[in-house]
Amino acid sequence: MPEVFPHTNLRRSPYYEATIADGVTLVHPYNRMLLPLGYGDPEAEYRRLVEGVSMWDVAAERQVQLKGPDAAQLAQILCTRDLTSCVAGQGKYVAVCNHAGTIINDPIVLKIDDDCFWFSIADSDLRLWANCVAGERGLNVEISEPDVSPLAVQGPLADDVVAAIFGDWVRNLRHFWFRDAEIDGIPLRVARSGWSKQGGFELYLMDGSRGLDLWNIVKEAGKPWEIAAGYPNPSERIESGLLSWGGDVDEHTNPFEVRLGRFVDLDVPDDVIGIEALRTLATGGPRRHQLGVVLRGDEPRPGHNRWYDIEKNGIKVGDMTNGVWSFKLRRNIGFGLVSVECQTGDDVQVRKGDELIDARLTAIPFREEDR
Amino acid sequence: MPEVFPHTNLRRSPYYEATIADGVTLVHPYNRMLLPLGYGDPEAEYRRLVEGVSMWDVAAERQVQLKGPDAAQLAQILCTRDLTSCVAGQGKYVAVCNHAGTIINDPIVLKIDDDCFWFSIADSDLRLWANCVAGERGLNVEISEPDVSPLAVQGPLADDVVAAIFGDWVRNLRHFWFRDAEIDGIPLRVARSGWSKQGGFELYLMDGSRGLDLWNIVKEAGKPWEIAAGYPNPSERIESGLLSWGGDVDEHTNPFEVRLGRFVDLDVPDDVIGIEALRTLATGGPRRHQLGVVLRGDEPRPGHNRWYDIEKNGIKVGDMTNGVWSFKLRRNIGFGLVSVECQTGDDVQVRKGDELIDARLTAIPFREEDR
Repeated sequence: MPEVFPHTNLRRSPYYEATIADGVTLVHPYNRMLLPLGYGDPEAEYRRLVEGVSMWDVAAERQVQLKGPDAAQLAQILCTRDLTSCVAGQGKYVAVCNHAGTIINDPIVLKIDDDCFWFSIADSDLRLWANCVAGERGLNVEISEPDVSPLAVQGPLADDVVAAIFGDWVRNLRHFWFRDAEIDGIPLRVARSGWSKQGGFELYLMDGSRGLDLWNIVKEAGKPWEIAAGYPNPSERIESGLLSWGGDVDEHTNPFEVRLGRFVDLDVPDDVIGIEALRTLATGGPRRHQLGVVLRGDEPRPGHNRWYDIEKNGIKVGDMTNGVWSFKLRRNIGFGLVSVECQTGDDVQVRKGDELIDARLTAIPFREEDR
Repeated sequence: MPEVFPHTNLRRSPYYEATIADGVTLVHPYNRMLLPLGYGDPEAEYRRLVEGVSMWDVAAERQVQLKGPDAAQLAQILCTRDLTSCVAGQGKYVAVCNHAGTIINDPIVLKIDDDCFWFSIADSDLRLWANCVAGERGLNVEISEPDVSPLAVQGPLADDVVAAIFGDWVRNLRHFWFRDAEIDGIPLRVARSGWSKQGGFELYLMDGSRGLDLWNIVKEAGKPWEIAAGYPNPSERIESGLLSWGGDVDEHTNPFEVRLGRFVDLDVPDDVIGIEALRTLATGGPRRHQLGVVLRGDEPRPGHNRWYDIEKNGIKVGDMTNGVWSFKLRRNIGFGLVSVECQTGDDVQVRKGDELIDARLTAIPFREEDR
């Protein structure tokens, strides 16, 4: 494999040198940064996340900050979920849609203050989108990417590690809520959040020059629990049913198709982008839905870089999006975006070029017995 | 260096396998693809481009297609350059600006037909931007990314190679003009274009499944002229004064600051995004301008991944953007975005952390005698 060329348009994470020192072997370009996705022992890294505690450089989850008199108005215009009840210190997972009601990003929205919001974004340029909307509507809001770089601590033992650093108050943080904190003079926000279903926190570092210091503090504090470097784990993520924008969802997918309907509030104001289209879509019901795909054959295969057709009786019924080896099922699994005529339990085939692989549709999240 | 993780959000070029076979050693993420930027012998690759002919996988230059009744209107709304006189078969280099008059992309705009335009984009998501504008203004236009993947043939001998494939008519193509063509059943457009100042063409492949066929046709036809794989060459590009969006220009840079004022038409209609801001900026004159920076010390240094401060008498006067080893000057060179009080010939210093490197400001393009 070729190396990645150093370039000013590829920003370096404040944790970059620590991840190199800890032996990162795989990276993925994400929001013009490199997101670590492997340290050489996939199974051990998976086990550490689901049984212990893991620390992740997720600086590539950039923050788009809206600040100013019209910040709250713009935040709501961008969000298909009602933000009225959201208070400072609270976050919400949101589907940001275009005018057609399909998804262009699925950030966590953090309400910092009445006139300040952070959108902790997936891998598409929400800052560009927000700038366009603000410009077109003449809103008085400053849109920027502040010096913020999340470090995630994830796994069933994450509470112990983060409490050891910041105190037991972190144990009482509710999901997606956050609080300002400081350690060794490093300014940050502690949020109960993270791209896994194993529990944990994201530490929103607010001074990029202190990245290595924060990394070392977490690494040292986590020693009793055998913490080590990990990453948003494709196996755990897909087993748990968490989406990756661009991988499983894109600007041709609407929220109802990918289990995000419960995050859409159809009674938000009419000026919310995409809401009219979503009301129409909700009336008709989705034509596709997302189910699990469990592939027969038990050899691990590398990830793929395009969607595969899912066929039933020789006819295409949908697409398999990201696929990965599941350590829980000991099978290759993936998400299937399939016709609503397909149901859990159906036998299907996944086409990889000329090869047809037998597979079964299952519920999400995946269960061990679905293998 | 870690490897790049295969992922559905990182599209594979139709020429990917050919570039691997030809020994690509460096890549750069660009528009969610990998753009080759090295084959192991930088000086030979540079010489081939400036003295012979080189073939490039530039599939990462994606096309954003506007099609429909309002396509021409939207194209003009996005462009700070007057497109009125542009005819089908013609392309123009354009600064696309936001509402503040700063640059969000600098594509080649190709007029395919009265109701169809391609924006051959730099590394930012112009499709997202165009979708937002069309949605906000209620325009009747379909915005898509068609199956188009440019292969560039660049260098003083490029005319001979491309004429050997398509015929002598290509020699008469004017700069940025293009024509439909076909070779061995492969549909494409031949444009006189390319990201170098050495002359040449871009072959806009319109069937991704035929990428390897097209690569091999060009490679075979170019044998008499010793063609080999190359890439948009950072040394030649910077010596020649060509910009890289995200590297030398970003959404905080206006066209007048970076030698693009001649591509801005202040008398375009008022609904063109950014034109009001640009009229104001034009009245005041720019506060910064772009000059060359020639660094003392003649050791090649690797590229960098952030901008460096330029200082004069201990005071910051601007930023050095991308920097690179110049084979023409046998010096490290880069672009300087500096206060208009700085002039060609000024001695300055470039700060890399604690290190200060003596440098001189020069004209662009760079000349050998400026070393």
